[in-house]
Amino acid sequence: MENDSHAYVAQVAAAIYPYVHFVHARLKQKGASELLGLTRSMVEQGIPLQQIVVNDRVDVALLTLAGAVQLPANGLPAQDVKGLLPKGTRCGVSVHSLEEAQIAERAGADYVLYGHVYETHCKPGVVPRGTAQLERICRLSNIPVIALGGIQPHHIPELYHAGASGIAVMSGIWEAESPIAAAMEYRQMVDQIVCSRCKETRVEEFRKKYGQVSGEEI
Amino acid sequence: MENDSHAYVAQVAAAIYPYVHFVHARLKQKGASELLGLTRSMVEQGIPLQQIVVNDRVDVALLTLAGAVQLPANGLPAQDVKGLLPKGTRCGVSVHSLEEAQIAERAGADYVLYGHVYETHCKPGVVPRGTAQLERICRLSNIPVIALGGIQPHHIPELYHAGASGIAVMSGIWEAESPIAAAMEYRQMVDQIVCSRCKETRVEEFRKKYGQVSGEEI
Repeated sequence: MENDSHAYVAQVAAAIYPYVHFVHARLKQKGASELLGLTRSMVEQGIPLQQIVVNDRVDVALLTLAGAVQLPANGLPAQDVKGLLPKGTRCGVSVHSLEEAQIAERAGADYVLYGHVYETHCKPGVVPRGTAQLERICRLSNIPVIALGGIQPHHIPELYHAGASGIAVMSGIWEAESPIAAAMEYRQMVDQIVCSRCKETRVEEFRKKYGQVSGEEI
Repeated sequence: MENDSHAYVAQVAAAIYPYVHFVHARLKQKGASELLGLTRSMVEQGIPLQQIVVNDRVDVALLTLAGAVQLPANGLPAQDVKGLLPKGTRCGVSVHSLEEAQIAERAGADYVLYGHVYETHCKPGVVPRGTAQLERICRLSNIPVIALGGIQPHHIPELYHAGASGIAVMSGIWEAESPIAAAMEYRQMVDQIVCSRCKETRVEEFRKKYGQVSGEEI
C-alpha cells in the first residue's frame, strides 16, 4: 500500500475490514506523520481501533490508541514495548526463524508473524521459507503463529494444517483488481477450514461420548 | 554516524559531549532497535540523559527518558508529541522554511533546527538555503533557531550574527580526523562569539550608565 495516498488506502481498508480480523497500517518508506495520518483516516472511515495494527511505530500506536502494534525484525524489543503500551494493546513480532519466534515469545509477544512462506515479488530473489519450517514453529510455539508471504487462497488449507492460527496478506489483496472481492475469497476459504475443523472436533467429541456417528448428525 | 556501529559512536559521543550542549542519536536508515541500542549505549558511556536528543522516534525517547526528541520534517506533529512526552522533555522540529518554522512554533516546539545553510555533501545537489533566510526566520521566531548544514567553525560568527541561538554539526565532527578536536574547535569559536556578545552588552550597559568607556574597563 506504499504508493497510494493514505486517504484512498483507508477507504479501501474500510471496505475490506468486515472480511478480515485486522488491518495493518504500514507505510514502510514514509515518515511517521504519514503513518499517523493513515491510521487516523482508518479510524475516521469507521474501522474499529481494536482491528487496527500499527506497523513498527509504537509512538503512532500510542497516539491513535490502535489495538495492536506489529514490531518488525529490526524493531523495538517486545518486552520494552509491552511496558509502554496501555494494558490490552497487543504486540506482534515479525520473525523469520524458530529462534526469533522463541525470543519473541519469551519477550512477551502476543503473537508472531512468520514469513515469507511462499514466493512473493515483495521479496524478490529471497528464497521462500516454506511450510515445513512453519509447521515446526507452530508446533514449538505457545503463542499464535500467523503465516505471511505470497499467500493465495488455495494455500490456506495447508497453512492451517501446518498449525498457523491465521494468515496475513498484502499484495494478494492490495494488488488484486478488486481488493474487496479478494478479501472475501480469502475469508471464505479460512472460514471453510476453520468450520470444517470445528465440525471435526465436534464429531470427535460426539464419537467419544456416544460412539460412531455420521457427520450429518452434528 | 549511520555507518558506524553504535558502540563506537557512543564512545566517541561520550568523549565529545563535554564540548557540546547536546548529542543527537540518529540512525536514519536503521531500525528502531538500533536507535534504542545507540541511545542506551550513550547513557552507559556516561552522557547525561538531559544532553541526549533522540531523532524522530518518540517511542525510543520514551523508553530511554532522553532529554529531547528531534522531529524530522516528515515526523510526528509537535503538538501530538508534546502530549506523549513527560513534562520537561524538549521537542525540536527540523524545518526548511519560515512557514514550517512558524507551524512548529504554533505547535509547541521548544526550538527549530533550520537548514541546510551551507553546501554539504549530506545533501548532494540540493541548493543550500543561505544565511539571509536564516536571519529572517530568527527575526520572526519566538523560539530558538539552531542552524544546520555544512557549518565550519569559521561560519559561526555570521550564523550568530544572523540570530541563530546555536549550531548543529554532523559531518564537520563525525567525518573529522579527530572528532574530539573538531568539537573543541567549534566550541571555542561559539564561546568567543557568545563571550564577545556578553562583553558588548556589558559595554553598552556601562556606556548608557556612565558615558563613553573603553572595552578594557569592563
